[in-house]
Amino acid sequence: MFGIILVSHSQKITDGTKEMIEEMTGELNGVKVISAGGTGDGRLGTNTVMIMESIEACRSYEHILIFCDIGSAILSSETAVELIEDETLREKIEIMDCPLVEGAFAAAVQASVSQDKQLVVAELSQL
Amino acid sequence: MFGIILVSHSQKITDGTKEMIEEMTGELNGVKVISAGGTGDGRLGTNTVMIMESIEACRSYEHILIFCDIGSAILSSETAVELIEDETLREKIEIMDCPLVEGAFAAAVQASVSQDKQLVVAELSQL
Repeated sequence: MFGIILVSHSQKITDGTKEMIEEMTGELNGVKVISAGGTGDGRLGTNTVMIMESIEACRSYEHILIFCDIGSAILSSETAVELIEDETLREKIEIMDCPLVEGAFAAAVQASVSQDKQLVVAELSQL
Repeated sequence: MFGIILVSHSQKITDGTKEMIEEMTGELNGVKVISAGGTGDGRLGTNTVMIMESIEACRSYEHILIFCDIGSAILSSETAVELIEDETLREKIEIMDCPLVEGAFAAAVQASVSQDKQLVVAELSQL
């Protein structure tokens, strides 16, 4: 199972990306998409605790991929990963170096076809 | 003056990107950002006519850059440009080959600093 966590200053961007992935790909097997954009209270910004909680929600999955857009979306994701104390959980996480919307979409499609993380990462390298 | 038109299946994504650009960059000189995502009536999808109207709204600008995410967002943008009959207007338009959110943000920042299109395009090539 893959957890795909979306991080941006804008909750609209991450909510919209989650909706688009879920509608365009239909029933996603083996993939859970979590929108973790914005501050959590409707403002533009990021929320490290919310990103940590999203990671915790993926605790039982094999792979946790975080997709970010710019600036502190990336920094807050890095901080969230550093603050995860459980090493087993932390080792499952990867912050992806690719575009947020396009990358998360491609990863979700590939992960629903195959649970092989190398194939998912290879798909993203073509973006 | 640059017109930056955002196209995605999801209006939330393009609205969120416009808001994020406008808030994070403060007063943008020489740049107008237009959200043209979704079908125009709240559904996921694209709307070629809406993209054409966004292009028309930028008629007086020197440069019109269209940023798309995936699939028919790109196809509908290409169709919209082909359907623009005014050649002078059409020649101002470029569909950018880069990530939607990250590309539009970088372009808006660069264009607000300099109105030189080559510099804006060079900024995007680094993404």
